Amino acid sequence: MRIADFRVHPIAIADPPLRSSYGLHAPYALRTIIELQSDAGITGISETYGGDAQVRQLEALRSQIIGANPWRLTGLLSPMVEGEGAGNARSQSYLVPGENPLDASTRTFAAVEVACLDLIGKTVGQPVCDLIGGKVRDEIPFSAYAFYKHGGGGGEGDDARPDEYGPALTPDTLVKQVQKMIAQYGFRSVKLKGGVLAPDLEIETIRQLARALGPQTPLRIDPNSAWTAETSVRVGQALAHELGGEGYLEDPTAGLENMALVRQRLQALGIGTPLASNVAVTSFADIPRSVQLDAVQIILCDHHYWGGMRQVQHLARLTRVFGIGLSMHSNSHLGVSLMAMAHVAAATPHLTYACDTHYPWQSAEDEVVLGGRVAIQNGCVRIPDKPGLGVELDYDQLARGRDRYAKCKYRKRDDEAEMRKHVDPNWKRILPRW
Amino acid sequence: MRIADFRVHPIAIADPPLRSSYGLHAPYALRTIIELQSDAGITGISETYGGDAQVRQLEALRSQIIGANPWRLTGLLSPMVEGEGAGNARSQSYLVPGENPLDASTRTFAAVEVACLDLIGKTVGQPVCDLIGGKVRDEIPFSAYAFYKHGGGGGEGDDARPDEYGPALTPDTLVKQVQKMIAQYGFRSVKLKGGVLAPDLEIETIRQLARALGPQTPLRIDPNSAWTAETSVRVGQALAHELGGEGYLEDPTAGLENMALVRQRLQALGIGTPLASNVAVTSFADIPRSVQLDAVQIILCDHHYWGGMRQVQHLARLTRVFGIGLSMHSNSHLGVSLMAMAHVAAATPHLTYACDTHYPWQSAEDEVVLGGRVAIQNGCVRIPDKPGLGVELDYDQLARGRDRYAKCKYRKRDDEAEMRKHVDPNWKRILPRW
Repeated sequence: MRIADFRVHPIAIADPPLRSSYGLHAPYALRTIIELQSDAGITGISETYGGDAQVRQLEALRSQIIGANPWRLTGLLSPMVEGEGAGNARSQSYLVPGENPLDASTRTFAAVEVACLDLIGKTVGQPVCDLIGGKVRDEIPFSAYAFYKHGGGGGEGDDARPDEYGPALTPDTLVKQVQKMIAQYGFRSVKLKGGVLAPDLEIETIRQLARALGPQTPLRIDPNSAWTAETSVRVGQALAHELGGEGYLEDPTAGLENMALVRQRLQALGIGTPLASNVAVTSFADIPRSVQLDAVQIILCDHHYWGGMRQVQHLARLTRVFGIGLSMHSNSHLGVSLMAMAHVAAATPHLTYACDTHYPWQSAEDEVVLGGRVAIQNGCVRIPDKPGLGVELDYDQLARGRDRYAKCKYRKRDDEAEMRKHVDPNWKRILPRW
Repeated sequence: MRIADFRVHPIAIADPPLRSSYGLHAPYALRTIIELQSDAGITGISETYGGDAQVRQLEALRSQIIGANPWRLTGLLSPMVEGEGAGNARSQSYLVPGENPLDASTRTFAAVEVACLDLIGKTVGQPVCDLIGGKVRDEIPFSAYAFYKHGGGGGEGDDARPDEYGPALTPDTLVKQVQKMIAQYGFRSVKLKGGVLAPDLEIETIRQLARALGPQTPLRIDPNSAWTAETSVRVGQALAHELGGEGYLEDPTAGLENMALVRQRLQALGIGTPLASNVAVTSFADIPRSVQLDAVQIILCDHHYWGGMRQVQHLARLTRVFGIGLSMHSNSHLGVSLMAMAHVAAATPHLTYACDTHYPWQSAEDEVVLGGRVAIQNGCVRIPDKPGLGVELDYDQLARGRDRYAKCKYRKRDDEAEMRKHVDPNWKRILPRW
């Protein structure tokens, strides 16, 4: 089997005005859909971060991809994830995921790896999870991912979407958002994107969530490093009960040293709440120091930028060895990414925390998966008994996404610029803010 | 595809009277050959440790194996390598590899995993290395594995083999053994199994090897923990030059603390010789403490007992993250194991040290691979452009091996008993001996 064609589709998808400490989501999120077509006419697909730079990085591999055996291509390209420099430390404190040049190579490799695995799976009639070690679970639990947001459903002009969830810039509106999301998808755990309101308001939000949802629902909060170590300890202390069980406190503060300090001080107060991270630890190179300091107790993997599914599995084994938990990070994405996330989770025994997903924030109008959106039921994605990722492309929808990409003015993600445009002309990402 | 038949073949193969600090190799080494036959009539094979206990452990999985999809079986069985307890620390200071009950589960899983991968590869027409991430090298370098030995070529009675290498219990006879082995196989690095003669004689052996082979041939010595920390430092100091470059000092002393002490004292003397291990570190659970102490700078992986090829790849990533080198351990084995070792090495970028192999100590009369022994040329095994492991069983030879197993009296490996029988009736493994 050889790869006869390689197609790269930049698309834009409507994204609501979600807030985080990075700023504000633009009306469109950018994604890239990849197709690898074999000489037998079978097509493997994947989805990754978007924008012109991502497209260029993928196109730069064209000569290595065309004519390659998809079973072997990942070995040929392995220097992109295993070579010198590929494992460089790369804090995401200042750069949103997908815009960090230091992970361009692992991101690009991952997109190709997943498309190869889908192509292989569709060729041999096996699901992707069974190509990478074998399915260990049928259903992958995801979390409700709650965001403080402005009014609006995403999209621009004629393409503007109804605001399904409404604005949520207070604790009580945020709770309503989560309740609506749980009613629709059955999520059994909740992550709140924090670092947006003053810490006391975010504490109050988590408390109201805990009251509304009861102790059986694990709660997590992720301010993306917006707080000082001091504030982090104060929040951790205030929410010691609410973030218990399978809850966690994610990247409260910037840098491994600060994270370690927060951990130590919480432990000294008798508070065991684990610290999670996809900002302080975003690459293998960050791990030795993190282990040494006990800075992070749960790592959020993401095959999109850790270098693909097999690298996530390596990470899983490593974290298990060092007694570190494993959860999964997400970004605005469509069903192809969701299925890839589900497959890697299905074949990774140690991935026991519910995964993040932005999927509820995207809409059916933008879905490129044939047959429409992937179902999330009881908070879970079920691995279908189908080859590859289990989904195919809807080429009309893909064309719409490409068209929207061509028409919209966004070529990379810049949450800070959006914030300045819509909220505060002087806004800057300040770390720590509180 | 389903697994329709599962066949377990205990075999015995002639083994010369090789010495180590564990004692003496018996005239026969025990191995187990596994066959998984699909409902399409295709057969996947693997080779593992031998003896009745290994056969029982494999047979205990029969009901899970028959009817299973080989792509998924490794997921179903994953608790054997990923479950609680599967990663328990398990020093091999006192037990020879293959006889440690604490790795029975990872050993047994590995045998099944490799047979599944061979079956899958033969079904889809791809080499095993391309099923697990893709080939990153075509040729796998192995080391000459030199042993002090008594006279004799292995086997018993009518089945006794000619002594191809002759006795070697002095430095100069050992050098001749290595020269002969290099002439035949083209090895470009040498490992000496030490812990047999007094340390000064082993130092002298390495010095003579260095003189005979020149500085371009990396030298390693492995006394399997026979020395005190003191002696280890003395040997490390005496051989600072000879074990340089890609050489190493393997398990000079027992236990991570002693290893760390040796490392520290050598470094204080300005000697950077890395310490390698497959005794102090034999499982993932040994690694955190080893990392903390900097006890081991090179880990010797072995898919046979680390839990299979994918676990070795996880280990490779982990060791790369922590700046630890990776080499490969071996035991008396035939061509099926050799090819499995070659395939995992071919798909593991970080496995940059030449691998160990006992293969030169086995003879063509015992080979179960169709067409005879696997070629080692220029010290390397070449990954053939064939599906699966690239080898098939010779069923006549397999029947001979089974027959020999039935006739010989050995049912497990016991080097200490052999030592008492043939060398010294009072011999005991003493750690440290020197």
